[in-house]
Amino acid sequence: MLCPVAARKLRGNDSATGPKPLWKIWENGRRDTLEGLLTDRSDAYEPLSTDTIPARLGGIRAITDRLGKDVSKWSADEVGDGNLNLVFIVKSPQSALIVKQALPYVRLVGDSWPLPLKRAYFEYHALTRQAGRAPEMVPEIYHFDEEQALIVMEFFSPHVILRNFLIAGNRNEGMAERMGLFTARTLFRGSDLSMDTSKRKADLALFAGNAELCDITENLVFSDPYFDAEMNECNTPQLDAIVARLRADIDLKVEVQHLKARFCNNAETMLHGDLHTGSIMVTTHETKAIDPEFVTYGPIGFDVGMMLSNFLMAYFSQPGHAETAGSRGDYQGWILGVVDEIWATFAAEFSRLWREERTGILYQKSLYEDQGHDLASEQALGHRLNDIWQDTLGFAGVEMHRRILGLAHNADFETIENEDLRAVCETKALELGRQLVVNRRQFSGMEPVLDLTRLIEKGKSV
Amino acid sequence: MLCPVAARKLRGNDSATGPKPLWKIWENGRRDTLEGLLTDRSDAYEPLSTDTIPARLGGIRAITDRLGKDVSKWSADEVGDGNLNLVFIVKSPQSALIVKQALPYVRLVGDSWPLPLKRAYFEYHALTRQAGRAPEMVPEIYHFDEEQALIVMEFFSPHVILRNFLIAGNRNEGMAERMGLFTARTLFRGSDLSMDTSKRKADLALFAGNAELCDITENLVFSDPYFDAEMNECNTPQLDAIVARLRADIDLKVEVQHLKARFCNNAETMLHGDLHTGSIMVTTHETKAIDPEFVTYGPIGFDVGMMLSNFLMAYFSQPGHAETAGSRGDYQGWILGVVDEIWATFAAEFSRLWREERTGILYQKSLYEDQGHDLASEQALGHRLNDIWQDTLGFAGVEMHRRILGLAHNADFETIENEDLRAVCETKALELGRQLVVNRRQFSGMEPVLDLTRLIEKGKSV
Repeated sequence: MLCPVAARKLRGNDSATGPKPLWKIWENGRRDTLEGLLTDRSDAYEPLSTDTIPARLGGIRAITDRLGKDVSKWSADEVGDGNLNLVFIVKSPQSALIVKQALPYVRLVGDSWPLPLKRAYFEYHALTRQAGRAPEMVPEIYHFDEEQALIVMEFFSPHVILRNFLIAGNRNEGMAERMGLFTARTLFRGSDLSMDTSKRKADLALFAGNAELCDITENLVFSDPYFDAEMNECNTPQLDAIVARLRADIDLKVEVQHLKARFCNNAETMLHGDLHTGSIMVTTHETKAIDPEFVTYGPIGFDVGMMLSNFLMAYFSQPGHAETAGSRGDYQGWILGVVDEIWATFAAEFSRLWREERTGILYQKSLYEDQGHDLASEQALGHRLNDIWQDTLGFAGVEMHRRILGLAHNADFETIENEDLRAVCETKALELGRQLVVNRRQFSGMEPVLDLTRLIEKGKSV
Repeated sequence: MLCPVAARKLRGNDSATGPKPLWKIWENGRRDTLEGLLTDRSDAYEPLSTDTIPARLGGIRAITDRLGKDVSKWSADEVGDGNLNLVFIVKSPQSALIVKQALPYVRLVGDSWPLPLKRAYFEYHALTRQAGRAPEMVPEIYHFDEEQALIVMEFFSPHVILRNFLIAGNRNEGMAERMGLFTARTLFRGSDLSMDTSKRKADLALFAGNAELCDITENLVFSDPYFDAEMNECNTPQLDAIVARLRADIDLKVEVQHLKARFCNNAETMLHGDLHTGSIMVTTHETKAIDPEFVTYGPIGFDVGMMLSNFLMAYFSQPGHAETAGSRGDYQGWILGVVDEIWATFAAEFSRLWREERTGILYQKSLYEDQGHDLASEQALGHRLNDIWQDTLGFAGVEMHRRILGLAHNADFETIENEDLRAVCETKALELGRQLVVNRRQFSGMEPVLDLTRLIEKGKSV
């Protein structure tokens, strides 16, 4: 959820420079030819509307196969949450599907904050890869129109956005396991632990083109929250003291930049890039991941950490949504159980994949198992899981800070009407975030993290 | 220096796949279109020879401006060391220059080991970037012909290859300082510490295309030496015991793969990629770096470590080149002084650039100095230098192993005629390499490294 406060030009939105050989797109450090082709609207680009959808999509077989050819029976609703894109649910008596179209700017701000259409291209490629790596977890794509920055895909019903589901205090089954498996499988299988490295390098290069959305993460997540940046949206006087303390905390500010450096440079795998609880849809028995338009190559712990962080914020926000004081206590325990189970499942599945699917150029079996050194393989796995664990905690901490101090807040806290109560909840999350970032190398496992979370929730250390 | 023993097909040398849109070169994880365009010989590609050079280059103004238009007065000598490329010195009464042309295969092996011509394209781009980042340190380019995979560049005279210079026991002035400055400047200025990140991401993507040469490093440096790989060239019975010990050393094999993962995934900066003493040319007062065709984005410590490693191998090889027993003792001391000074200069220059040129997206001054937190900047610098230091030692250790156990040996050891003596020298290098890899996080500075080196040289611990 973006809560834009001011227009800001993202850098580097030059137009195409003409007929230079297209395959030299990366030459001289300039992506302008590719950017030109992918960023700039072609003359044919035109945003859809509920009125034009039948006429404009009625001739596409992949769509009419599902909705039927009689477009007079179609109905379209625009359901985008209003941040970046147009999102339509298009229904017919036969079926329903999602039409997602990028706008060439941030929707709520308008033309003054341009954002390239090519993000639809990267989302399309991310979805196709995720579908291969973690089947049944992401929407099936029916149709992709690059010129129109348009993805037509599976409509999940009666699924709801997980964030709202948690605010309402609902529980479901299997979500923790499925998200643990989803992250382990997509992150392992998009890395040099698994892929042919020439394909991984090609994907690294492909997604390096998603620079403008990376720029949002780089600035809005890792930098702006830690100083009085123009784009920040935090006007809660009750937080002034802790905000001042965090922004004066040199150890914190150093460690956050180390994490930023890992995000920017440590291209381990294809990330979802924005895996918060607003990018997960659930029923009581199903779980799906959507919206990977922030896809980039980065460290494995980033997706896992962002996801766990959003559950931890849901935890701290519960008193603000309690029907009566203390009535969400059991539910908070359930949320911490989800956090625990996601990590445990991730680690177990990552370990299984390490043992069974390690076909990439790293930690090759030819060096280890084939030499009778199974122990080397297990030793290396332990080290790598420990690295991922520390990254996960660090990224989780940063995510908590940026959701409260930065531009993009989340509904868990924002929908708490009592400002004093909201500030108490947010303060606790800020405090845990600081601990996770600075001390991420000193947690021996999940239980100490959950102990600390519960201690902070009790107000013992805030 | 490659000493090929057997033909090996490098993977993925498919031909172009036709007329698909060229700007989608990275789509679906396939680089084949780009590879096709860059790898496959066009019909016009033809290797040069000393006979054809005047006719084929005599019409190029950038060349005739230097050599004159009267090609009858030109003379050409082929001086390539015979590994990968054709290298000609072309002279006229006026001047002289270097003509370097890639061959579509590894020269000494022949057609059975194809290697794409596009490496000339990547070398060209690496040289232009290095020239901007570290002026006066790399050959000036006069002419680049991509179709012919041809770079015409500055001829350094009377410079000699540093490796031979060290074998001969020569000294020079300023080399350590210049190489310390060269690495600090190229590595800092090619990173997100300095560059506009959209340009860095574009370069990351550009050089990701150099996959085949990366593949050589990934396999021949980081994997083959640690098991009985087909491509290894190590038939010295005197080494059998230590080789067996190293290959059974699980801690070593785990740490080497961690270093490989850093090389493959930690895309901090544009590396030279092959910065050994065969890629450095010197006189008694000048120093130049050449041949960056292994360019890729990788960790800062890789270039520094490979360079220091080759000096340390030169150190251990000296007894094999001594005119009389012990006569190279002082010279060995001089080499260790070079190692010490290179690192000290690198660290000092990197620190200066950190303080004065930190204009990238990492550790921004807006977060630190602009908030009065100069201390945060210094704290972060200390951490990063420590990371680079540990990487440097680790990569230095791996380089020692692969130069003795792997395919590509170096003349420092290879030219020692007494096999027993050579094995003694090599054993010491292998031993130091193991210590540097496994204990790279436990050296408090250069002096303990040099102490250990001297101790091993004395035979105290081997």
